[in-house]
Amino acid sequence: MAIEIEQPSVRLSRIAISDAHGEDSPYFAGWKAYDEDPYDEITNPSGVIQMGLAENQVSFDILEEYLEGHSEAAYWGKNKISGFRENALFQDYHGLHYFRKAMAKFMEQIRGGRTKFDFNRIVLTAGATAANELLTFILADPGDCLLMPTPYYPGFDRDLRWRTGVKIVPIHCNSSNNFQITPEALEAAYENAQAINAKVRGVLITNPSNPLGVTIERKVLEEILNFATQMNIHFISDEIYSGSVFSPNEFVSIAEILEARNFKDSERVHIVYSLSKDLGLPGFRVGTIYSYNDKVVTTARRMSSFSLVSSQTQHLLASMLSDRKFTEKYIEKNRERLKKRYQMIIEGLKKVGIECLRGNAGLFCWMNLSPLLQKPTREDELSLWKTLLHEVKLNISPGSSCHCYDPGWFRVCFANMTEKTLEVALKRISNFMEERNKKGNNFSSQ
Amino acid sequence: MAIEIEQPSVRLSRIAISDAHGEDSPYFAGWKAYDEDPYDEITNPSGVIQMGLAENQVSFDILEEYLEGHSEAAYWGKNKISGFRENALFQDYHGLHYFRKAMAKFMEQIRGGRTKFDFNRIVLTAGATAANELLTFILADPGDCLLMPTPYYPGFDRDLRWRTGVKIVPIHCNSSNNFQITPEALEAAYENAQAINAKVRGVLITNPSNPLGVTIERKVLEEILNFATQMNIHFISDEIYSGSVFSPNEFVSIAEILEARNFKDSERVHIVYSLSKDLGLPGFRVGTIYSYNDKVVTTARRMSSFSLVSSQTQHLLASMLSDRKFTEKYIEKNRERLKKRYQMIIEGLKKVGIECLRGNAGLFCWMNLSPLLQKPTREDELSLWKTLLHEVKLNISPGSSCHCYDPGWFRVCFANMTEKTLEVALKRISNFMEERNKKGNNFSSQ
Repeated sequence: MAIEIEQPSVRLSRIAISDAHGEDSPYFAGWKAYDEDPYDEITNPSGVIQMGLAENQVSFDILEEYLEGHSEAAYWGKNKISGFRENALFQDYHGLHYFRKAMAKFMEQIRGGRTKFDFNRIVLTAGATAANELLTFILADPGDCLLMPTPYYPGFDRDLRWRTGVKIVPIHCNSSNNFQITPEALEAAYENAQAINAKVRGVLITNPSNPLGVTIERKVLEEILNFATQMNIHFISDEIYSGSVFSPNEFVSIAEILEARNFKDSERVHIVYSLSKDLGLPGFRVGTIYSYNDKVVTTARRMSSFSLVSSQTQHLLASMLSDRKFTEKYIEKNRERLKKRYQMIIEGLKKVGIECLRGNAGLFCWMNLSPLLQKPTREDELSLWKTLLHEVKLNISPGSSCHCYDPGWFRVCFANMTEKTLEVALKRISNFMEERNKKGNNFSSQ
Repeated sequence: MAIEIEQPSVRLSRIAISDAHGEDSPYFAGWKAYDEDPYDEITNPSGVIQMGLAENQVSFDILEEYLEGHSEAAYWGKNKISGFRENALFQDYHGLHYFRKAMAKFMEQIRGGRTKFDFNRIVLTAGATAANELLTFILADPGDCLLMPTPYYPGFDRDLRWRTGVKIVPIHCNSSNNFQITPEALEAAYENAQAINAKVRGVLITNPSNPLGVTIERKVLEEILNFATQMNIHFISDEIYSGSVFSPNEFVSIAEILEARNFKDSERVHIVYSLSKDLGLPGFRVGTIYSYNDKVVTTARRMSSFSLVSSQTQHLLASMLSDRKFTEKYIEKNRERLKKRYQMIIEGLKKVGIECLRGNAGLFCWMNLSPLLQKPTREDELSLWKTLLHEVKLNISPGSSCHCYDPGWFRVCFANMTEKTLEVALKRISNFMEERNKKGNNFSSQ
């Protein structure tokens, strides 16, 4: 009788079986909990409210109004069909000429016209996720590292590391100076990288910061650029929230710093942008890399073959962004509305004794619940997070999922829901705090 | 006086400076020559005719007719705005539920209903370019290899190798048996891989074949699958031309083979599909991976974050593909028209003494100009290619750019132009052959 030897299961790659995709983090776990029991005012009023997703829904009506008045932008009707044909075939990795021009203008407009962008340096990608990965492939080899200030967006663990084999070495920032990046922290991170034998190839910052919801000060940008120049490494500035700054004069783009320096050392600087946050169009997958380095532009464009933007979508958005009247109105109104939302949540939290980092940008605030922890540990933070998720039914992101050094901080999104839902969320937090106070469980570490 | 030491230019990655992107090949060089001097009947009648681009323009009118009758598919007008909002936000990497369902049905329809596809196994990517790279990341480690029959699509050198670090080891096929894949050629390729110390992780075939323009026979598919099972490696079947088979009964999908085997060993099988060729929509960037391996499905879905399809485009195409009447008509008419085009070019070439491999699928034919070579070498082939490009003003792709073993073969695309332009191209070839005959430069190797 023949012995049957079972064929071993066919193997997958190390990348496939690694967990560097980071989806096991509480950041994503919270999303799943929301998906299983999503809040709805009518049908599921005791469900989980999603405050862990940085989506901008506050200005949709302005986009809708534009579309109502400009059906030709989205539509190929009678006699417009030839546009469809041309468009459907367009797969050139340069992207539609008129869309890149419109993007460059929009990026200038957001920055108050204080800097210029050359549309020939715009490389399109299917979202900022792809843009950041693509830059990492171009700037660093497997085993090398990028320095990144903490707390940082949890998705970076996947975007920058998973397929590239590149490491992230944290620049530890903490609450003692409102999480500002200091030259000392930069130096320390550089030394830590050397200690693990990882070649440092660049610094990546988000400005405005995700998750802090604040813009980076000019002085700090200057220091980081000086550091990058001194160490001869790259500087990636992810500015995907640059149009969502409520106090626009407080935002300084790295592009402005370069302009002031006459573009000296600009070959090491690369900006990432996207329409997912500022226009609230994550489903359309429009990201971009703006590099001052010619070789990076050429290579990124070639590489964008793996991640092109639908020409149908480029066509629609080109019309929208080329309409100056629309963009001016949108940028202004969107800022006003985000500011209003921000103030609403900050004041609501303040009333029940919760402080946040002073913010001026983005779709979230950085909330300090450290006074609620029994001990200042990651474990206590995650235990509080679980209570908030499963009992208070709010999905917010724990600082530890953002590699935050200090325990007890949380990112809370406020722009992906109606004001009414935000009120419900604030009411839930208020009840929770009241309950705690009643139980004498009050601010143990104060 | 201080000595100024010039800062070394900031370094890029090995991937960035490598030439594994393959754009230096004559395949892409021909595109550039066309771009610089594109043929136009009126404005540039002596320009280069592009026969190096596998685009399908023969059935656009059917798509346009659909869009004229179904403006709601592309358009968010009054009272349809809520669809826009939902759609613009949709960034879930699962893709739109109803789009994946429509894709699965369309893939079944193309295969004459002889096999079923589960829409839960459909992973969406921004084009087949991304799908093939993504699978390579999942199935092989850097330094490993995939076996691939020659001649193969020149873009694979970029798609499968550039960022993954994976190698392609050719399965040499040749004209002696009409470029069929044999068990001996498979074995030889496997041994060649071992000789260069590259672990073989899979076989990748295109069925119908690009550049041959023929479907792979059932017997050959069985042999490859048996080989893959015996060696415990993966089997990737790129079937992006499956809807462009003119003799539909001659096409056998690997899905049908698996069905007949009760899905035994199916965990090693992965199908790549796209709407770029069969529907002629390369600009919309819609590719898909259909894997029978659960772990590959999960991982590919996660990885598709780098390469998502615009939800606007998913929405439009979901309507189109869900309309059974439209798809039936489209598939039938498109086949008829491609067949007509194919016959037109084959007969035109025959008249002037040029033979092609007997084809039954795709947007190109595989033309044998080996009798025109002085010596059967790559150099002579490229010299003939240059003459055709610069003097006859036709951009066709030399077999060597497809890693063809036998010199003198060329891929000629016939579906990316009007019939009238095709006639001009045939006339040019006819004149060229006549000139050669006059000069006594006739068929030296016959």
